[in-house]
Amino acid sequence: MTYRNDTVVILGLGLIGGSLARALRETGYSQRFIGYGRRLPSLEQGVELGVIDDYTLDLGEAIDQADILVIAAPTLVAADLLADTLSLLGDRSDQPVITDVASVKGNLHRRALAERGRMPPNVVLGHPIAGSERSGVGASDGRLFLNHRVILTPDPDNDPQAVAAVRSMWETTGAEVVDMSIADHDAVLAATSHLPHVLAYALVDALAQSEASEDIFRFAAGGFRDFTRIASSDPVMWRDIAIANRESLLGAIDEFDAQLSRLRQLIESADSNSLEQTFTRAKRARDEFAAILAQRQRSGN
Amino acid sequence: MTYRNDTVVILGLGLIGGSLARALRETGYSQRFIGYGRRLPSLEQGVELGVIDDYTLDLGEAIDQADILVIAAPTLVAADLLADTLSLLGDRSDQPVITDVASVKGNLHRRALAERGRMPPNVVLGHPIAGSERSGVGASDGRLFLNHRVILTPDPDNDPQAVAAVRSMWETTGAEVVDMSIADHDAVLAATSHLPHVLAYALVDALAQSEASEDIFRFAAGGFRDFTRIASSDPVMWRDIAIANRESLLGAIDEFDAQLSRLRQLIESADSNSLEQTFTRAKRARDEFAAILAQRQRSGN
Repeated sequence: MTYRNDTVVILGLGLIGGSLARALRETGYSQRFIGYGRRLPSLEQGVELGVIDDYTLDLGEAIDQADILVIAAPTLVAADLLADTLSLLGDRSDQPVITDVASVKGNLHRRALAERGRMPPNVVLGHPIAGSERSGVGASDGRLFLNHRVILTPDPDNDPQAVAAVRSMWETTGAEVVDMSIADHDAVLAATSHLPHVLAYALVDALAQSEASEDIFRFAAGGFRDFTRIASSDPVMWRDIAIANRESLLGAIDEFDAQLSRLRQLIESADSNSLEQTFTRAKRARDEFAAILAQRQRSGN
Repeated sequence: MTYRNDTVVILGLGLIGGSLARALRETGYSQRFIGYGRRLPSLEQGVELGVIDDYTLDLGEAIDQADILVIAAPTLVAADLLADTLSLLGDRSDQPVITDVASVKGNLHRRALAERGRMPPNVVLGHPIAGSERSGVGASDGRLFLNHRVILTPDPDNDPQAVAAVRSMWETTGAEVVDMSIADHDAVLAATSHLPHVLAYALVDALAQSEASEDIFRFAAGGFRDFTRIASSDPVMWRDIAIANRESLLGAIDEFDAQLSRLRQLIESADSNSLEQTFTRAKRARDEFAAILAQRQRSGN
């Protein structure tokens, strides 16, 4: 079936949902934007800022107006909202396209299966790789996704028209849309984002609890600041991500831990050659990554 | 005894040694600067840039001219240079003050004990907590130490006049000089610098060797770039630091690993409350550290 894109409903109006609404309004992709959430001040602020035209605290009312429904709530709340939405929609004929922006896809997929037995044709999961130090609708920015990647994880049971509609929505924001399987998405995000957060939290917490913690933080310098920056992230959000992506994250932790044990062994045996080889190989990979990232940022790809 | 500070000899003319010479020249603290090293181009460049007045490839000749002798070579080379210097100096009466800038103090201490049976009164070990992305004498900067910490690790066997001379030299550069025991220094540096480097190398190497490495580096973003920045550091320098500070570093790795195992267990059991507590505690510690670091940088302390 074909899907309209006149009215976009955002469930959970924060930085990401607000930025998406702004981008779609600025490009004229959609005409009407409705916010739904549990925090009235965010919704009121969204109207004041012109990010949304209207809001409701009633999920059913929100769904009824949607051509495109974007679940923009944190990971675990997103799964609840997806289940509630599917339950409210039932098997009515005029289903909106449903998508989301959460950092984990497996838990939403499992929730949809639990609700419907298979992936609904109109539910196309996605994840924009974009963010900001700031949060909330007040920090929303129509250019947030410009030149950033958006990963979609289409399912064989998806309606190709629904996939096309979500892809087209994101392309309108200036993002580069890439397809991935749910398993690959969750593994890649575990490795590049969720694991580093766990490592940074583990390091800072271990140091904070050590006897020498006062001296430790007193003499730590710029390298330590960069390395631990992500330990200043929102604990509730990361608690939820760690739980939602538990399986992939545990795999990534184990892979990392095996590598750390190997390095520990090389240090203990003062194996100079192998240590240098490992550090050199890591430096080469990291330099290549940094060069690619810098090039991508320059060229806007 | 009292020590003169007319002539400073730098063993190993790179970023740190060159920056120290520049700072001491600019403030008029010393009049004459001699470089010693194995790489002629660095020494010639040092003269061209006006960082040093002269150089020699003969260690004995370098030592003979020194009032203050600064070993500014990497960790393991520094230990060799200290041993050679002590051997060449023997028990002559007009000993220079000897200090160093290496990242580890225990290995130099052990080397001095092996050479002399006790810490020589004129050898005062030190470590400026300052650096740059760039290296080499061409990147040297007389303001590199301004508002940075310099840790000295005076020994009970040190001549207080020698300690005062090294302290005074560093204070001239605008650094804040702090005393610590060798064991504390090496433990604090293991925790705040050497361990994070090992973790970053371990993470990047684990990811580079994983099957999904292409996707991993393709979708990694800014948080990953910050977290892994130190994995782009010089592999040979970090190989040597890891070996020189092996004992403290192994302790730090084990402390970290125990904390990672606890977090892994919380994730596996989806222990939402404990995860949130741990992440919150870590965030609080990291935010406090960042605030202190920012305040220090603003106030110039």
